[in-house]
Amino acid sequence: MDEKSWSARAETVSMFGFTDLPSIESRGTIVLTHGEGPYVIDTQGRRWLDANSGLWNMVAGFDHKGLTEAAKAQYDRFPGYHAFFGRMSDQTVMLSEKLVEVSPFPRGKVFYTNSGSEANDTMVKMLWFLHRAEGNPNRRKILTRWNAYHGVTAVSASMTGKPYNEVFGLPLPGFIHLTCPHFWREGKPGESESEFVARLAAELEEVIAREGADTIAGFFAEPVQGAGGVIPPAQGYFQALVPILRKHGIPVISDEVICGFGRTGSTWGCETYGFTPDAIISSKNLTAGFFPMGAVILGPELSDRLDAAIAPIEEFPHGFTASGHPVGCAIALKAIDVVMNEGLAQNVIDKAPRMEAGLRDIMQRHENIGELRGVGFMWALEAVKDAETRQPFPPHLSVSERIANTCTDLGLICRPLGQSIVLCPPFILTDAQMDEMFQKLDRALEQVFDGLRAEGEA
Amino acid sequence: MDEKSWSARAETVSMFGFTDLPSIESRGTIVLTHGEGPYVIDTQGRRWLDANSGLWNMVAGFDHKGLTEAAKAQYDRFPGYHAFFGRMSDQTVMLSEKLVEVSPFPRGKVFYTNSGSEANDTMVKMLWFLHRAEGNPNRRKILTRWNAYHGVTAVSASMTGKPYNEVFGLPLPGFIHLTCPHFWREGKPGESESEFVARLAAELEEVIAREGADTIAGFFAEPVQGAGGVIPPAQGYFQALVPILRKHGIPVISDEVICGFGRTGSTWGCETYGFTPDAIISSKNLTAGFFPMGAVILGPELSDRLDAAIAPIEEFPHGFTASGHPVGCAIALKAIDVVMNEGLAQNVIDKAPRMEAGLRDIMQRHENIGELRGVGFMWALEAVKDAETRQPFPPHLSVSERIANTCTDLGLICRPLGQSIVLCPPFILTDAQMDEMFQKLDRALEQVFDGLRAEGEA
Repeated sequence: MDEKSWSARAETVSMFGFTDLPSIESRGTIVLTHGEGPYVIDTQGRRWLDANSGLWNMVAGFDHKGLTEAAKAQYDRFPGYHAFFGRMSDQTVMLSEKLVEVSPFPRGKVFYTNSGSEANDTMVKMLWFLHRAEGNPNRRKILTRWNAYHGVTAVSASMTGKPYNEVFGLPLPGFIHLTCPHFWREGKPGESESEFVARLAAELEEVIAREGADTIAGFFAEPVQGAGGVIPPAQGYFQALVPILRKHGIPVISDEVICGFGRTGSTWGCETYGFTPDAIISSKNLTAGFFPMGAVILGPELSDRLDAAIAPIEEFPHGFTASGHPVGCAIALKAIDVVMNEGLAQNVIDKAPRMEAGLRDIMQRHENIGELRGVGFMWALEAVKDAETRQPFPPHLSVSERIANTCTDLGLICRPLGQSIVLCPPFILTDAQMDEMFQKLDRALEQVFDGLRAEGEA
Repeated sequence: MDEKSWSARAETVSMFGFTDLPSIESRGTIVLTHGEGPYVIDTQGRRWLDANSGLWNMVAGFDHKGLTEAAKAQYDRFPGYHAFFGRMSDQTVMLSEKLVEVSPFPRGKVFYTNSGSEANDTMVKMLWFLHRAEGNPNRRKILTRWNAYHGVTAVSASMTGKPYNEVFGLPLPGFIHLTCPHFWREGKPGESESEFVARLAAELEEVIAREGADTIAGFFAEPVQGAGGVIPPAQGYFQALVPILRKHGIPVISDEVICGFGRTGSTWGCETYGFTPDAIISSKNLTAGFFPMGAVILGPELSDRLDAAIAPIEEFPHGFTASGHPVGCAIALKAIDVVMNEGLAQNVIDKAPRMEAGLRDIMQRHENIGELRGVGFMWALEAVKDAETRQPFPPHLSVSERIANTCTDLGLICRPLGQSIVLCPPFILTDAQMDEMFQKLDRALEQVFDGLRAEGEA
């Protein structure tokens, strides 16, 4: 079977999601067969350094022996069960204990899902249930931010602050998006970073006053916005907002699907940015991408309030068939151990300054890069037509897609997001692999910006 | 670690879903370690015949070597990837081809999710998107039936026709539930089955007239309602309703999460009941419970219309991180082969009459069983206070929970649903295991009904 037919086969039977169809049209589908460390290889033997970690999640690379062995051992032992009706696997119990142990909470409870989308959707249902049971049935509105990404179920897509959801007629009513805390892009001329944060805090107060605190169910935030284009919060952002939310009795949920388990250089993104949420949403890195799994980790207050609210109805009517799947739990137990105790989290901490320095160096060589932003092992370079005025390229030029496609041609996978190129490599990256990433990215930027200049666009 | 501590450990860290909390309180959590064929075994060495197939899904039992080997081989080969950006694994392509091949459609396209909930939620988003793109943005209402079960995301829970969703303030607006096609319970005195079906068809016409066909996005139905309590449709139901839906341009979606891949004695429940939908929702049996996976299988018309609707926006902005996970796809390929070609589907066909006869025999020995209903390997016995008048037991007696708990004490897992006991064993069940199921169930019914008579309740 040659490559042309693999690509054609894929296109005949696939309903593509999050895929630029003109790129498929012109370049075909890449059909992958296996991986080696941070590299993936396709049916033709082509090889890419995947600086996207799959989708942020394959933090231990694409052939990690310890994780593979943990998966295989559990398949031999107990290859599937649920967590309904007061029955669950031993792996499920052990993982819940581990998640509470590594959480920022002194105690808590865990509810499993199959994805981050389901975990956010579940958290919304938990809040709707809780407020209703406590006599506040109008507390249903959900606060998130523009450029937030919380998933793709109808409700988690409504939380996501992206204009593309308009094609579905989303967001649903009652999902309110606050200003994205991206100082470089959202700051006003002459405004200092602390003034920007004060403005966002005032906006939150105004929204709560306008909507009524007694209509708001919760506030969800990624510590660093991931699919929004790697946007670390303006300095002091959570310190300014969290006390306002607490004052109005609005639970604070940290969506750690991307940030959790080491990506920002701490176990949780909320640690990196110095706030303690009421619950954590986890997925992706939780299993290092080896199994679909999400988890809601409830802190003590929400655990206790939910327990009290459920007691009178005797059953919480919610759960997914594969919630707490024994193989997923065994893999997650191993993934947490591998990341936290086998040097992966430490590698992020150790190499983050090198990554920042290398990317800053690239930025300085390309005048059409307007901003470098990030933390730990998640970074973005934003392309601009004019770095001085921060004027973006016209969207029809698809500049970030061009850069990503050129990178692909050179053997490097990175992700175009808006007008940014995102780099979030696996935690196992070596110095030599990081250098390969820098070199290929640099060459791709040179080719694309040279081309744009030749077209009179840059 | 003794059993008391496993149970206590589970309760300390678990937010239980779909679990009767008084049963946990009095009986503790069952923590399972492994399985053997259709049996599961806990940390104390206690052993149960799981006549619930886990959650309908572990159709090949709890230690199927062929499935385990397929999972392990793929973990060695390629343990994780996504299906975004025009890249996907070879296993993903092969599974999509296989799903279209075994579908009722001459051609079609596949979109992957991690669960049936996500697949139904995705199908709703696809319909909202499609109608909007085609110039019908008001086609947003979703028709389902009372007692339907379509999942637990906020939208799929809104489709589910169960009163318990009221605790979340669900359904969301625009989710309309038609009469459950359960002739025994919903038929009026003196009404024949065909009159009942004619009434339900008239109701559908009335609802469409009342709401306006141009406000309705789609109709979703399980061929046999599963978590509603195993409710096969009244005879001629789909033949009566589907033409009405077609006449009004309302897509018909068959939710085959439970029925699909052999449970009703055909590959699809829609085959058993003689209708062809516009799309199929699959999950559970798709991987025999060895991996969380869902799939939307689009027939030719919806595939073509969606392709045309997506073309102008160049990208369908939807997808889950683990959509089309290579390990899940490899497992599903093997599961389909095992079920369809290694005798499992045939075993259901061969033994369904024996199962029906054995359960009918049990029914005849217990005057408090009002109805036996089912098909293939999915059956329910409905408990009633009075079989003549079909009067149910008072809910506070929790009769079906008592039966299920007594079964558990005797080494048999079955599921209480409403006032029914559901039996949906793995497809590998032998005659001897079926006899064990009959004997344990019979004894449990005797104990519970004797007890109720002693209390003056039966």
